[in-house]
Amino acid sequence: MKPIAKTTAVVVVLGMLIGAAYAQFSRPEDAIKYRQSVMFVIAQHFGRLGAVVKGQQPYDQKTFASNTAVIESLSGLPWEAFLVPGSDRGKTTLKSSVLKNPDGFKSLSRQYQSEVAKLSSDAKGSDFNAIKTQFGTVAQSCKKCHSKTRK
Amino acid sequence: MKPIAKTTAVVVVLGMLIGAAYAQFSRPEDAIKYRQSVMFVIAQHFGRLGAVVKGQQPYDQKTFASNTAVIESLSGLPWEAFLVPGSDRGKTTLKSSVLKNPDGFKSLSRQYQSEVAKLSSDAKGSDFNAIKTQFGTVAQSCKKCHSKTRK
Repeated sequence: MKPIAKTTAVVVVLGMLIGAAYAQFSRPEDAIKYRQSVMFVIAQHFGRLGAVVKGQQPYDQKTFASNTAVIESLSGLPWEAFLVPGSDRGKTTLKSSVLKNPDGFKSLSRQYQSEVAKLSSDAKGSDFNAIKTQFGTVAQSCKKCHSKTRK
Repeated sequence: MKPIAKTTAVVVVLGMLIGAAYAQFSRPEDAIKYRQSVMFVIAQHFGRLGAVVKGQQPYDQKTFASNTAVIESLSGLPWEAFLVPGSDRGKTTLKSSVLKNPDGFKSLSRQYQSEVAKLSSDAKGSDFNAIKTQFGTVAQSCKKCHSKTRK
């Protein structure tokens, strides 16, 4: 293969790979709706944990662990959808800077996932003080990302 | 405890348990948004599988299994939200008959979960014909429930 043909082939393959990653969503609106849907479900379950941590609902180990497990199972889902080109416009509060600095965003999302995994691990036991502390750490991780990425 | 006091106590405890189940959603609108959010996420991943089954996207065992795993992890989530009183009104296509016959609805949802679990098991292997057949069975299960429960 001639060098130019080789370069073209590499570019085409790379384009296909990047395309495949983004082709998950047929339109930026779908990516927006997808991440908002996941976040809404997470927020509902996180709210249930919050009510227990604040003492508004009684602590039941099984129920708390089950809600945490749902949050953990969703913790890897929404991030790709935030990096879809054009999804910083329309019905979204996403700052355009996120699309310009995907690595910073990925790092924040990994930090969140790691703290959620710790909470999930704590929730399998019944040390409610440890659980409360880790719940606070997860909440801080949410806030940190929101403050950096929301318009 | 006197018989009447005992009965009252049982009724109160039962009421609390039922209350706890429904108190997960502070408003019927939240239940509607919750189930629609879960369904949108499922539909996105199911659409990705559908594109592969229809031959519009190449079959990649890992990607297919990963999308199926997401669908499986979500397969138990939305049902409770359909049975929240008052959530058959407003921005929803839910038939009121679902709330009047929760057992029929639960049976349909269990059928769907069981077919999804089979698809997930098939997707761990690479018998694409078996996978395609089971994908069709899951799709039929979706349609069956939609036709009985949507306005």
